[in-house]
Amino acid sequence: MSRIAYVNGLYQNLSDAAVNVEDRGYQFADGVYEVCEIVGGKMVDFPRHMARLERSLRELRIATPMALTSLKVIMQEVVRRNRISYGIVYLQVTRGVAHRDHGFPSPDVKPSVVVTAKSLNFAKNQAAAERGVKVITTAENRWPRVDIKSVGLLPNVLARQEARDKGAYEAWYVDDKGFVTEGASCNAWIITKDGRVITKSAERGILSGITRAVLVEVLASLQLKLEERNFTPKEAADAAEAFVSSASQIVMPVISIDGNPIGNGKPGPTALRLRQEFHKFADIA
Amino acid sequence: MSRIAYVNGLYQNLSDAAVNVEDRGYQFADGVYEVCEIVGGKMVDFPRHMARLERSLRELRIATPMALTSLKVIMQEVVRRNRISYGIVYLQVTRGVAHRDHGFPSPDVKPSVVVTAKSLNFAKNQAAAERGVKVITTAENRWPRVDIKSVGLLPNVLARQEARDKGAYEAWYVDDKGFVTEGASCNAWIITKDGRVITKSAERGILSGITRAVLVEVLASLQLKLEERNFTPKEAADAAEAFVSSASQIVMPVISIDGNPIGNGKPGPTALRLRQEFHKFADIA
Repeated sequence: MSRIAYVNGLYQNLSDAAVNVEDRGYQFADGVYEVCEIVGGKMVDFPRHMARLERSLRELRIATPMALTSLKVIMQEVVRRNRISYGIVYLQVTRGVAHRDHGFPSPDVKPSVVVTAKSLNFAKNQAAAERGVKVITTAENRWPRVDIKSVGLLPNVLARQEARDKGAYEAWYVDDKGFVTEGASCNAWIITKDGRVITKSAERGILSGITRAVLVEVLASLQLKLEERNFTPKEAADAAEAFVSSASQIVMPVISIDGNPIGNGKPGPTALRLRQEFHKFADIA
Repeated sequence: MSRIAYVNGLYQNLSDAAVNVEDRGYQFADGVYEVCEIVGGKMVDFPRHMARLERSLRELRIATPMALTSLKVIMQEVVRRNRISYGIVYLQVTRGVAHRDHGFPSPDVKPSVVVTAKSLNFAKNQAAAERGVKVITTAENRWPRVDIKSVGLLPNVLARQEARDKGAYEAWYVDDKGFVTEGASCNAWIITKDGRVITKSAERGILSGITRAVLVEVLASLQLKLEERNFTPKEAADAAEAFVSSASQIVMPVISIDGNPIGNGKPGPTALRLRQEFHKFADIA
């Protein structure tokens, strides 16, 4: 876990790291976040995460809190102070502290910036990948602007808990047309029996995953055929393999969907290969 | 504004009132809230607000943080310490502080409780009601569980700001069937030229407003005919009157919708009458 957090200019013990109760992140979910993987103490795909952060902020008309070079220094410092070799660093930016009123506050109000970091257990994650995980499906019930990486994650919390209650690891959303959109905190992928890799187009209805984008490059290098299109839970259940991708999980093989085994019910070789190859293509600095 | 806030057991200066950065309210919008009007230093319709709070908590499986009698004492104390005669008291309850993970934390994690209060200017609000306010319409883009009064209010923030950008006071959501659901932070009402009072049924798609519920009683006492049904922006534009209701606004007459004047473009007599009668029916204690 994170022991040191950065909050609005100060590096503090996590237990003391606090934001005002009138922070708009707390009262309105009026903020965004990013999670970067850390490998060998370095951030993975930082430029892509910052480009997405800037897009999220722009869409919500929240000012960029500082130069990205400064933000990078802070995030690296949080990683260093927490002595993270392998793990994740979490960045949250909100519209700042102002007396409660739905409309935007005065432009004088400065965005809040919080950074935490934590170690992950590489061997444990790898062992989980070699076992694979189970997913369930749940009705898509988020607002349409899931392309903005906002902290308004209550539907995702409930979906993830529903998965846990059903003995699974993650929930895949299914939209009102019957198509899988994405997971509660990951992108969803399947691989057909003839080797085509399918994931929903990032044009709309999902978050444009950074890990997803890098995987597109990995697939090309391995000469695997990618189809960015909708797929149904039925097509997933009939697939040879399935997996999810996210910054903290990279590639995590999926072995069943709603209790139906996928392929032979074991992690697929292509998913494991993609997991192995991923960091050769990621930008680590 | 609130000078004293209650946060997890302590009464503090608002500037010092803080929650940990890992409060799930901050990272996931995993919490709920209530706003009670204060009249003569007393809370209006406290039992109804608490019944709705308990329902919101139950729907999200968040533990009730303490006995409602204790919560009442705290809220009254915040009102007293801030010397509020007329105003609002704000209560927020979140799932508490835990290391970031979408699924629910251990049952040992205690919910967080924050209470703030602020004075409102009665004369100023009354003058606003006598001028009336303008509303715009905007596409409904919230998740379907708006019956839960969660702090996941980012869509509401954006709708309210859109209204402000267009020179209006509030935004009314219009669903994909073309019906008005409610405002960004209020219920929406119209009165037809033959005197029927229309508001959407609280059965689904809106928050079950406390002020709305009391107004139903006021209408009955005034022998005004209520129809709880859907209406369109067109029907609103053709109505004799329109208004919004909320705990902080009670009844606020609406004089135009998307730039089209309603009735004669002035606050309607029935809306003003309802505003005047409201507190005779509210439970003030």
